[in-house]
Amino acid sequence: MIKGIRVTPLKHIVTPKGDIYHAMKSTDVGYCGFGEAYFSEVHCGERKGWKRHNRMTLNIVVICGAIKFIIYDDRDNSDTKGEFFEVILSPQDNYSRLTVDAGLWMAFEGCAEGTSILMDIIPEPHDPVEADRKELNEIVY
Amino acid sequence: MIKGIRVTPLKHIVTPKGDIYHAMKSTDVGYCGFGEAYFSEVHCGERKGWKRHNRMTLNIVVICGAIKFIIYDDRDNSDTKGEFFEVILSPQDNYSRLTVDAGLWMAFEGCAEGTSILMDIIPEPHDPVEADRKELNEIVY
Repeated sequence: MIKGIRVTPLKHIVTPKGDIYHAMKSTDVGYCGFGEAYFSEVHCGERKGWKRHNRMTLNIVVICGAIKFIIYDDRDNSDTKGEFFEVILSPQDNYSRLTVDAGLWMAFEGCAEGTSILMDIIPEPHDPVEADRKELNEIVY
Repeated sequence: MIKGIRVTPLKHIVTPKGDIYHAMKSTDVGYCGFGEAYFSEVHCGERKGWKRHNRMTLNIVVICGAIKFIIYDDRDNSDTKGEFFEVILSPQDNYSRLTVDAGLWMAFEGCAEGTSILMDIIPEPHDPVEADRKELNEIVY
């Protein structure tokens, strides 16, 4: 496993009128402050990425559909330099929170029919110059 | 309008692979700290409530479907005591954040086919004794 990635199973409480899904508490391991929460949709078969945050840890939950996350480590001095990590999150099959430290490249792909939705909690409000981007074909997976 | 309720339109950014929806920033009016984020589903035609939080402000965003929120003010010394407020939130038709101060009764109902989903951000982790509950028929709307 690449250092700086954590997959934390989350509680899903079944109730007759509609279920409850835990996402994040301030007391959780992996929480590093609240700056912003936003949603990102991804249509089936589409891939968004690559993106690397240079200051911010991401805390991601998939609340609709299923999304495959691919993380790539190109950090100098990392024991896992050159490695990829892959996980599929979904409220039905793997309801977990994905925590990704700053410095790792990430892409993600819609794996369910229609549109899938993730929520991301980041420790500071969005800052476009805080992240680097590469085209999908610039990191071959 | 009942004092202690705020409806804030949010940004929805259309992109070809899947849209981005703002939910909350720490710099937003209405933000009162981060204790927990969770999701609540509600099936079409079902109503959840009544519930009154006694310490916590709620910040609610509907990310799937459409949900009608009904808020009831029975606070002594409130100018709007006895009044109801109603709003339908939906990512398609009214993508806004609903901020509800402590002390107000709230119920909500699924208004879209299938299951609708809200996210709620609260300033402290969930505490079951912090809220009061009433049966739906105890407050006639």
